Amino acid sequence: MTNTPDSPSPALGHVTLVGAGPGDPELLTVKAARALAQATLVLYDHLVSNAVMDLLPADCERIHVGKRKGLHTLPQAEITAEMIRFARAGRSLVRLKGGDPYVFGRGGEEVAGLSEAGVPFTVIPGITAAQAASCLAGIPLTHRDHAQSVVLATGHLQGLHGDRHVDLDWPSLVHQKQTLVIYMGLGALPIISEQLVAHGMPADTPAALIERASLPEQRVVTGTVARLPALAVAHQVESPALIMIGGVVSLHPLLAPHH
Amino acid sequence: MTNTPDSPSPALGHVTLVGAGPGDPELLTVKAARALAQATLVLYDHLVSNAVMDLLPADCERIHVGKRKGLHTLPQAEITAEMIRFARAGRSLVRLKGGDPYVFGRGGEEVAGLSEAGVPFTVIPGITAAQAASCLAGIPLTHRDHAQSVVLATGHLQGLHGDRHVDLDWPSLVHQKQTLVIYMGLGALPIISEQLVAHGMPADTPAALIERASLPEQRVVTGTVARLPALAVAHQVESPALIMIGGVVSLHPLLAPHH
Repeated sequence: MTNTPDSPSPALGHVTLVGAGPGDPELLTVKAARALAQATLVLYDHLVSNAVMDLLPADCERIHVGKRKGLHTLPQAEITAEMIRFARAGRSLVRLKGGDPYVFGRGGEEVAGLSEAGVPFTVIPGITAAQAASCLAGIPLTHRDHAQSVVLATGHLQGLHGDRHVDLDWPSLVHQKQTLVIYMGLGALPIISEQLVAHGMPADTPAALIERASLPEQRVVTGTVARLPALAVAHQVESPALIMIGGVVSLHPLLAPHH
Repeated sequence: MTNTPDSPSPALGHVTLVGAGPGDPELLTVKAARALAQATLVLYDHLVSNAVMDLLPADCERIHVGKRKGLHTLPQAEITAEMIRFARAGRSLVRLKGGDPYVFGRGGEEVAGLSEAGVPFTVIPGITAAQAASCLAGIPLTHRDHAQSVVLATGHLQGLHGDRHVDLDWPSLVHQKQTLVIYMGLGALPIISEQLVAHGMPADTPAALIERASLPEQRVVTGTVARLPALAVAHQVESPALIMIGGVVSLHPLLAPHH
């Protein structure tokens, strides 16, 4: 059977899931930057920076599917369904997500849907916020004297009004020689600070808030785990911000690239 | 006082600490790739791939300072001293480390030495092995159904002969909704497997070994945490290899990019 103009049977499009990194386009991988430069269609999240979006060709079609607090543009399942529709229509596309697609990016859920639908895909990792904050603020994630391991967790609030909580396993997060990095935890800072100390973390454990890591507006505020909520208020720290807790934060004055 | 030809007083050189990523040069950041292309002097580790080294200009001076098991080319303190000497002689250089400089890279120790000596520096993050293995093997580090957090730890053997051990806080690593990634743990695999199960991890927890993540020879072997040592022997897995443990490993058959 051959295709005629009346019965086109396009080859399946390919989905390239790209980690957009922390915001600075220079921190994209070479492979990700090339995928963006060649894109004809991109589905992108709210967290992707303008500077990264500027790498797309002028005639690339852009669809905003990102989530913003209280403003869910497209539910997760619909994003996947949309990608499958495009792929079946023969269109290849870039799915662009902030940070690394497989670190709090829900990339796994999206790719599972593609795989089940038989849509071919590639996943390109990205520098995650913890790494950008670490290298640019001068707070190593691991260090012989301070941290043998590092935990990445999310701290977003769950539940309604009077019953708001953070679904974290507090005891496993309180461990002396470990760096704790919490994504999306700014709104729950009082709970996080209180629970960590209640579960045995010394109140004077060094802690930092890193706002807009890697962007020109990056700010670093340091103090102790007990004082984090007060610090956030005093310095009017805003999302996106990362929380880093542990002995490594004490290295910040020495390792911050102030030269 | 002015400089004369007899008393040159060169400006201090700059040290750029670059994360070389997992091995595939396409997974360098754009910023790292540029730093390599412009380098005139590089101090590099054993773990940096040949493909990454090929990005250096032909006339770039290369000094191997890397550590290989049982073959310490230069002690850590001497590497830092060497960088300071070059910088004071006015030479800028790239310090090239595998993965991310601040994730088990001992970058913090090296930069502390530079900072104390007044040598200006920049740190460029790199894709760490856990991210490359995750995206390329199809094992997300986090996932709504399987892992709310991820721990990165090292598993190298410590101590001598009869008293060999791994210095990890086992209870904090055994947590159902968490992905555990262990770097440099191949030699200690029997201890790691045994200790995790002894501390309450279900013996049938999905687990994987990822050999040479991101390189053309990448291999993924999956099984359970209890069977990891047998799997490593059966498949003759060799360093560098990463251990990934947790429910996310069960997604590998679905998410592996086999298309």
